[in-house]
Amino acid sequence: MTDSDLYPVSRLAAVQEATAKAGLDALLLTPGPDLRYVSGYDAKPLERLTCLVVPAAAEPYMMVPRLELPAAQASPAARLGLDFVAWDETEDPYRIAARRLGEVARVGLADRMWAMSSLRFRDALPGAEQVLAGNVLRELRMRKSPGEVAALREAGEAIDSVHRQVPQFLRAGRTERAVARDIAEAILAAGHDTIDFVIVASGPNGASPHHEVSDRVIQQGEPVVVDIGGQLHNGYCSDSTRTYSLGEPPADFAAYYEVLRRAQAAACDAVRPGVTCESIDATAREIIAEAGYGEHFIHRTGHGIGIETHEEPYIVAGNGEPMEAGFAFSVEPGIYLAGRHGARIEDIVVCTETGGERLNTTTRELVII
Amino acid sequence: MTDSDLYPVSRLAAVQEATAKAGLDALLLTPGPDLRYVSGYDAKPLERLTCLVVPAAAEPYMMVPRLELPAAQASPAARLGLDFVAWDETEDPYRIAARRLGEVARVGLADRMWAMSSLRFRDALPGAEQVLAGNVLRELRMRKSPGEVAALREAGEAIDSVHRQVPQFLRAGRTERAVARDIAEAILAAGHDTIDFVIVASGPNGASPHHEVSDRVIQQGEPVVVDIGGQLHNGYCSDSTRTYSLGEPPADFAAYYEVLRRAQAAACDAVRPGVTCESIDATAREIIAEAGYGEHFIHRTGHGIGIETHEEPYIVAGNGEPMEAGFAFSVEPGIYLAGRHGARIEDIVVCTETGGERLNTTTRELVII
Repeated sequence: MTDSDLYPVSRLAAVQEATAKAGLDALLLTPGPDLRYVSGYDAKPLERLTCLVVPAAAEPYMMVPRLELPAAQASPAARLGLDFVAWDETEDPYRIAARRLGEVARVGLADRMWAMSSLRFRDALPGAEQVLAGNVLRELRMRKSPGEVAALREAGEAIDSVHRQVPQFLRAGRTERAVARDIAEAILAAGHDTIDFVIVASGPNGASPHHEVSDRVIQQGEPVVVDIGGQLHNGYCSDSTRTYSLGEPPADFAAYYEVLRRAQAAACDAVRPGVTCESIDATAREIIAEAGYGEHFIHRTGHGIGIETHEEPYIVAGNGEPMEAGFAFSVEPGIYLAGRHGARIEDIVVCTETGGERLNTTTRELVII
Repeated sequence: MTDSDLYPVSRLAAVQEATAKAGLDALLLTPGPDLRYVSGYDAKPLERLTCLVVPAAAEPYMMVPRLELPAAQASPAARLGLDFVAWDETEDPYRIAARRLGEVARVGLADRMWAMSSLRFRDALPGAEQVLAGNVLRELRMRKSPGEVAALREAGEAIDSVHRQVPQFLRAGRTERAVARDIAEAILAAGHDTIDFVIVASGPNGASPHHEVSDRVIQQGEPVVVDIGGQLHNGYCSDSTRTYSLGEPPADFAAYYEVLRRAQAAACDAVRPGVTCESIDATAREIIAEAGYGEHFIHRTGHGIGIETHEEPYIVAGNGEPMEAGFAFSVEPGIYLAGRHGARIEDIVVCTETGGERLNTTTRELVII
């Protein structure tokens, strides 16, 4: 995939149209996924303002610190043929951007815009109501193109290749941190550009869903939750969880692992156009609750994924959004027994016309090492 | 250094006092350097709200997603003895935080708070004016304790050890990207937890101050700007630039490199308590301008550094802040000849009672490989 497939030049016009339709006068996109989605430019978020200004009804332009002008001109944003407005160290880029923008009543801020920028824009555009650019962009970002699905498939294959190596790294007597270090190297070697997270949660730590790593020494007979992901050079992210056991696991663990496996499979099988996001959550939750573990499944079933690991659509109670072909998201129920152990199984699933396609394909059976 | 040295428990009370003194009713600190500075908690920035609420005149508390409660309780924030308020997936944490906070007129937002949070807080606290928490925290963060200076010295030594290896990596015929890969590995091997940036800018790319890397093949006779940094496990950052040359550089380059070397040394020598930040910038700028390269020095002289690579104080025209012992910042003038080549020399300098101490100690002479 080239940048042109994943970040097509035509997207900018589509974004302008959606901005107008949403009743916004402009989007203000500072570095982060929103900027990258619209322009292909993966600018570093720093204190100096870089901002793509997308007016609903005028030419877009990009504010760039003078010293980053050559970098911006060498970036994919240059394909868009827009004006780069370079500002000098002693100038106020917010005022410059505002002056060029003129009178505006409502502007959309990049969802990840830092307060140090949003408050400066508030002061430079005192008449403008600030809302999230996500209100406009979520509708576009949520619906993945075939090129984006291909990029997510590539990311899925990359992280699957790491999970296949995990049994070599996981050994009783090693610390979580040491295992995580091997996994981190494997994530890069598998073609990721960055390591986004490496959770190695052994024994009781497995009951903490966002535990990362510790110096705890992994023991024989313990289940270990391994939740890993990274970002490919093209911007698309991987995310997959598997649960391993060093030898035979405790009997109560084996019992609920089987419940979890069924719940995760059922939720994946329930994916198809028209079903709501919350119904996928409910599918997993009901199976777990019926088996008596409802209070131990303490998080939503999943999150969208694309150029962010967590994005719309969220697979959570209250989200009545109906699925469409091109939605891509995780299905990752978990069961956590505080102080004892836990388990989670996670696949990225893309909704197609005919149902859900899992982009992770390693076994969901408990891997006994 | 332990967390207790770098993130002392006593800091929270000092922050509360400063908050009251600044006329703010509370600070709202989402994941990022502000939260870490106050609590020691290096929480991942994600879409679910984690937020340390520091009222000026009531007990602080921390909003935490239920699934991250064990991780927060295992974090250094637990030392503060504050209430963790866990919220469930279908609750509105902004409303919960606001209800507990009560009537407030002015709140300070973490400088890096995402718009997706700041706008939700605006709606949940409609009567409250939002300002930057940095207004309060900059005064504290800017003045490094001896423990923090020691951490920055450790970071400086780590990145210096990488610069000492650069001559082994830089070879004519290699691409910038290949060299950068070796440097990145060396940054981790030197004890950094993360790689923050690796700039390898050869020949004409050296004229782009924030060029990162490309597939350009480095040629014999070319100068190469190498600007690298990372973050230690304790949170403190390194940042150092050296310029190398593959064999004898062009004569015009050698001439301005010598100017740059003098300018950088003079700026470092000018550091002492009482001089203003902008005067350090002026010291470097005047030497470069007098030699006729003024228009080619297109950025400020430096930035503060600590648990962020770029933080207060900025060494820039217009910043009349007088230096104090404990200020730590980069001194990094550069000269850039568009389309030809460029050079930059950067040391981290800490202001002591008796003058500036450079925390980077590798040679500032041009390194000819």
